[in-house]
Amino acid sequence: MTRQELIENIRRKQSFLCVGLDTDIKKIPAHLLKDEDPIFAFNKAIIDATAQYCIAYKPNLAFYEASGVKGIIAFEKTVRYIQEHYPDQFIIADAKRGDIGNTSAMYARTFFDEYNLDAVTVAPYMGEDSVTPFLTEADGGKRHWVILLALTSNKGSHDFQLLRTRDTEGEGPDTEVMPMYERVLRKSQEWADKEKMMYVVGATQGKAFEKIRKIVPRHFLLVPGIGAQGGSLEEVCKYGMTNECCLIVNNSRSIIYADDTEHFAAAAGEKAREMQKQMADELARFACNDK
Amino acid sequence: MTRQELIENIRRKQSFLCVGLDTDIKKIPAHLLKDEDPIFAFNKAIIDATAQYCIAYKPNLAFYEASGVKGIIAFEKTVRYIQEHYPDQFIIADAKRGDIGNTSAMYARTFFDEYNLDAVTVAPYMGEDSVTPFLTEADGGKRHWVILLALTSNKGSHDFQLLRTRDTEGEGPDTEVMPMYERVLRKSQEWADKEKMMYVVGATQGKAFEKIRKIVPRHFLLVPGIGAQGGSLEEVCKYGMTNECCLIVNNSRSIIYADDTEHFAAAAGEKAREMQKQMADELARFACNDK
Repeated sequence: MTRQELIENIRRKQSFLCVGLDTDIKKIPAHLLKDEDPIFAFNKAIIDATAQYCIAYKPNLAFYEASGVKGIIAFEKTVRYIQEHYPDQFIIADAKRGDIGNTSAMYARTFFDEYNLDAVTVAPYMGEDSVTPFLTEADGGKRHWVILLALTSNKGSHDFQLLRTRDTEGEGPDTEVMPMYERVLRKSQEWADKEKMMYVVGATQGKAFEKIRKIVPRHFLLVPGIGAQGGSLEEVCKYGMTNECCLIVNNSRSIIYADDTEHFAAAAGEKAREMQKQMADELARFACNDK
Repeated sequence: MTRQELIENIRRKQSFLCVGLDTDIKKIPAHLLKDEDPIFAFNKAIIDATAQYCIAYKPNLAFYEASGVKGIIAFEKTVRYIQEHYPDQFIIADAKRGDIGNTSAMYARTFFDEYNLDAVTVAPYMGEDSVTPFLTEADGGKRHWVILLALTSNKGSHDFQLLRTRDTEGEGPDTEVMPMYERVLRKSQEWADKEKMMYVVGATQGKAFEKIRKIVPRHFLLVPGIGAQGGSLEEVCKYGMTNECCLIVNNSRSIIYADDTEHFAAAAGEKAREMQKQMADELARFACNDK
């Protein structure tokens, strides 16, 4: 999906909600365990109940890999189901991959060629040649995205992402002191532009959005951390929204586990609808509906 | 496997070789493609030919995930085969994972509970709570290891790992300037000791080993980058070996793709035997055989 198509979907649906499919076999309603594929049965019901209120889905690979082959089958069926029934949804493999070139190329082939997903989350630690295969391999002119970790939502983000850094070499503007995550934002712009790259910025990072928008004024940001992790939608929008929106706000647990009875899907739909309404208000406030 | 058992295996087999199972369906000998599971057939032959010369295997998850469900089945069969036939082998899932706590915990359950592997490679960017679930989840008193990326073998390692960093806070010894990878080495020692944590240091990093040994004098280092990537075994040993060895040197492509005919396994075995002989010399040189 292109950046422009994504923006149009957001305006049309008045939503920038991503539903995180962190489907844990231990947390899904008991009656589904009788199904031959409980994870897919759960996802299908969640997707049908939420698709009209969201513009993206983000299956988290860890939750599928934990069930081995069965989990991978459920992942594949989930992706195919979204692609077949809701082709306007942007699908993100939340995988946090990143390795030497030939290995990143294999991951790229998996997520882009094999599954034809829109985006994959990538960790930046190994640098350029660990990221660029996701931009060049298996692309074939299609619009696949890298979503690079910048400033994450967890407590551990303070350990390395906020370290003050200087470049290794001597003089010049590169030696300016800046936090690690800012270095990632700046350096990675040499690898791809706003049509192919987004950044993960946690909703718990508050005012950092203001600073980040100065560096990447028109890049999309994927924002986890609303809900269970304590981030605020209002604050994210206040500091992070642009007149093209340029935000994809993820919510996993408070939507998909809104209820653990047979009414789980309706409850998830209701929760997604509430978030969509709040998002419509924010889109109006920031004039995102004007083209 | 405990650290002491690993050291004993190295002394007994006179080898610290890890064979990287980066098995690419596009690179295996053509006659294997008739097999119902070509990837496993290839791995099984490679393992049988090399097991006496190595102390570890490192399947690279990217290469299995690229074949979808079939790949995961081949991965599982490979792991079970090693565990059943060569129980003294240390098995590393080369996965470069790392995510928020509940997600890292899911990955830990997969690799440690589901597959009972010895170790998993983890990316440090997201900090403490992305790493510690691999140390605490699913451990149950067994000896599972985190192998944290420190200074990798690829060109992109220069982008962020060598940046000079200062702590975010004001005064004291923490504000000392040091490269990012050194910060990772120092900080992560607060999370686990040498019995549970190793570090990835690329063979291409030469003299950096000398500095790294000052920071982690007795930690095991997993060293990729010999062979196809151009690193030198002699140099790695010169600067990185201790009298307990404390090195696991990986070789993937130059062993497993030593030959692309029906003699591929014999050729891989021969290549592994050559490396083992060089390693025996290095172990003698550094007095690693003295207990």
